[in-house]
Amino acid sequence: MNAPDTILLTITMGDPAGIGPEVIVGSWGDPLLAGVARRVVVGRVAVLQRAVELLRLDLKAVAIQDIGQLAGMGDNEIPVLEIEYPDADSAQPGVNSAIGGQAAFLAIDMATRLALAGAVDGIVTAPISKKALHMAGHTQWPGHTEMLADLCGISKTVMMLYLSPRCPLVKSPVGLGVIHTTLHMSVRDALVAISGEAIIATSRLANDFVMDMLRATGETRLPRIGIAALNPHGGEEGMFGDEEIRIIAPAVMEGIRQGLPLTGPLPCDTLMHRAADGEFDCVVAMYHDQGHIALKLLGLHHAVNVTLGLPIVRTSVAHGTAFDVAWKGTARHSSMTEAIRVASCLARIPGSQ
Amino acid sequence: MNAPDTILLTITMGDPAGIGPEVIVGSWGDPLLAGVARRVVVGRVAVLQRAVELLRLDLKAVAIQDIGQLAGMGDNEIPVLEIEYPDADSAQPGVNSAIGGQAAFLAIDMATRLALAGAVDGIVTAPISKKALHMAGHTQWPGHTEMLADLCGISKTVMMLYLSPRCPLVKSPVGLGVIHTTLHMSVRDALVAISGEAIIATSRLANDFVMDMLRATGETRLPRIGIAALNPHGGEEGMFGDEEIRIIAPAVMEGIRQGLPLTGPLPCDTLMHRAADGEFDCVVAMYHDQGHIALKLLGLHHAVNVTLGLPIVRTSVAHGTAFDVAWKGTARHSSMTEAIRVASCLARIPGSQ
Repeated sequence: MNAPDTILLTITMGDPAGIGPEVIVGSWGDPLLAGVARRVVVGRVAVLQRAVELLRLDLKAVAIQDIGQLAGMGDNEIPVLEIEYPDADSAQPGVNSAIGGQAAFLAIDMATRLALAGAVDGIVTAPISKKALHMAGHTQWPGHTEMLADLCGISKTVMMLYLSPRCPLVKSPVGLGVIHTTLHMSVRDALVAISGEAIIATSRLANDFVMDMLRATGETRLPRIGIAALNPHGGEEGMFGDEEIRIIAPAVMEGIRQGLPLTGPLPCDTLMHRAADGEFDCVVAMYHDQGHIALKLLGLHHAVNVTLGLPIVRTSVAHGTAFDVAWKGTARHSSMTEAIRVASCLARIPGSQ
Repeated sequence: MNAPDTILLTITMGDPAGIGPEVIVGSWGDPLLAGVARRVVVGRVAVLQRAVELLRLDLKAVAIQDIGQLAGMGDNEIPVLEIEYPDADSAQPGVNSAIGGQAAFLAIDMATRLALAGAVDGIVTAPISKKALHMAGHTQWPGHTEMLADLCGISKTVMMLYLSPRCPLVKSPVGLGVIHTTLHMSVRDALVAISGEAIIATSRLANDFVMDMLRATGETRLPRIGIAALNPHGGEEGMFGDEEIRIIAPAVMEGIRQGLPLTGPLPCDTLMHRAADGEFDCVVAMYHDQGHIALKLLGLHHAVNVTLGLPIVRTSVAHGTAFDVAWKGTARHSSMTEAIRVASCLARIPGSQ
């Protein structure tokens, strides 16, 4: 296991028109990040320096040419590996543009190459705009995660939403993860897509993630994974639907047989309440809203996305570019702070991701 | 509008084996209930007195024969209209029995008659056990609310889940209501049952309820009702389902045309977060878990059920008999306190319910 101070993370600047630069420099001196990891930003010095001045921070964005230069940096210097794209410096705040999209793309591309080459231990990404990405001609990917997966040569990834134990409403000492068996599809399609195989595969990813978080925090116990029911009251013994009896309960049994520490299916309203209370480390939801309603209520500003299934460690803020409030100096950086902390945790585990 | 001190509410004792008697006597002296309403319990003096002694309260349960006797009661006396069923006094704590079910039935029957006759202004019910009710031979009703509706000669009611503004996570000054277009059925059946008519009818009930709460608190503004989407991201313009386009958005338009103050459809995860933040007074959810996940996370112990569509005011605690902790003196009475406050609010409005 690597010691935290040897962990090196790259942070991608995101769309320069959004709140990415603000939350990166805003989180730079956060006491929660003291000793957590060394950081290097991939982006543009001019953009980050503008964010430093907006927030009136005692920091200075400094261009570096390679990782080796990090050794001589001062505490109040933000090292920036520059993308070769000076146009980004003049991206207009708060609006979609091809320039913003291209800048976002170039930073992710460089950061991914560094991570794949082993020059850094993980990537933390600031938000990009899908629309700006498409305006810049990168139309082959629906979004951020698909692009990253493709750059890594991977076809399938799964997103874990994670709330740290610093979120006031979360009681588990390793935080609370929520992962979805089905995600970006209609409820009608989700009913077809929910399968025993999907539940077991998702549960296995959940288990691996929680295992990593437990190891990173020095805990030796097993993960505690709660599997949500699909229907109200868990189907009430078949009266309100039979997917629990036909699909979910058998999948939980099979998962347990394979050694996964699963409990369920449990009615999702009860499960989310019990999980927030500290009884579970991760919830496997059956469809989008089950997980997202809970996560947004429990800690919108603390949430982190973790991409599972990549060959590299990658976390992301759980918010978007927030063009409506960008470059006003009001954006909260708590999600960026948590994304850095989680990436550092995962990067400490040999063989993680 | 009646002044609060002239409001008279009956509180039904619930199943004597459950936590009903405890939460009734526990809430009796709650400062939040000072001046809110006069109260009379329908149940058994011996059972309530046992709860008083369990909680070591400076109160005394006193039998009365009719409402007229309330005038001479002291502040530390709990007036009890007795059901003629001495067997209830020996119901064994924490277990289902025909005795418990029969006692629960008799109290509800008496309280409903009093309310229908206009002798009291509303009913607040402590929890009963469906199983005990059925053991006592009352198998014609699936549960509490159906029994009450039947005793009132009504075939259809709708349950509103309500969180008071005293719930720390709720910001709206009149609290937050959640009402469901579909409820106790599978997700598969809900997809069929969601209709424009159901959405408008449910929205109208939500509007009437919030209007009553606003009038009771002296606010003159219009209600603010948020209508949930069914699918993730509100269907993402048809990409993740078309119910928003085909059914929900047209229903919202038609509701607005009929004068209802509706906003939506909004993605339910965002809507719940915005509602908790104070932007809406009530959310119309499309199915059970959308509403219940949010309500349980926001305030399990403060939640109140309000039965809409009855000719009488009726609220209920949102928890069950909790046989596992009954008669141990540990039950929280916050839901009972809120149920009494809400019933008093609604009873103050002439023509309400």
